[in-house]
Amino acid sequence: MWTSSTPFAPPAGRADLESGRALTPRFDANGLVTAVVTDHATGEVLMLAHMNAEALARSIATGDAWYWSRSRASLWRKGETSGHTQKIVEMRVDCDQDAIWIKVEQVGPACHTGARSCFYRRVVAGPNGQAPRLER
Amino acid sequence: MWTSSTPFAPPAGRADLESGRALTPRFDANGLVTAVVTDHATGEVLMLAHMNAEALARSIATGDAWYWSRSRASLWRKGETSGHTQKIVEMRVDCDQDAIWIKVEQVGPACHTGARSCFYRRVVAGPNGQAPRLER
Repeated sequence: MWTSSTPFAPPAGRADLESGRALTPRFDANGLVTAVVTDHATGEVLMLAHMNAEALARSIATGDAWYWSRSRASLWRKGETSGHTQKIVEMRVDCDQDAIWIKVEQVGPACHTGARSCFYRRVVAGPNGQAPRLER
Repeated sequence: MWTSSTPFAPPAGRADLESGRALTPRFDANGLVTAVVTDHATGEVLMLAHMNAEALARSIATGDAWYWSRSRASLWRKGETSGHTQKIVEMRVDCDQDAIWIKVEQVGPACHTGARSCFYRRVVAGPNGQAPRLER
């Protein structure tokens, strides 16, 4: 029986990675894959985060978004202190299995600043050859 | 005059990073930020890639998507060999300025496998407690 503590099989060759039916994540040197999180309803990119094997396995097993915090060096369930949880509606993996895309039902803001999305500023080219600026 | 060879100012404190008007990217130890690329029209996540300072600056200055290839250790303009270019419609930056979201007009497939998006497989929990599987 597969549980959230079952290890993932190691990545195989490129053909299996790209065309296979097995999830064999390519964790980086720090043991992480990148997770892109979008709002299931609007498609908006809410945040980027990282998952280690346990966070990924718990996310699959529970349907709640679990991440690895690089700054705190700890596993966390999104919203466990803020209440701003993420229920996973769909999970996808990319061609070489080093990135995960989850579509979530986001409760409240996704960003710690209180913004709905962490990407609350546009980068706009500066007028008359000036440096780019950020606009909300 | 700001050009694609002008360096970005170094990141300041948290308040400036989160609320400021200046783009001061927090490049990682390898000099990279992560870029999430979505289809401007459909919102679909097409791919994840990395930008070093020059790739980011060229993307801003030209409106074409430029990346840093970690495997080839070289700068590349998306589509320069395949023709599958990405015209940037909008660029956003996240709260702590270590991730970029670009909405693009994608010509042809974004993925080197020929798929429209690199995220062409869903991760589905296995039935009866079996390991998760990938479905197209």
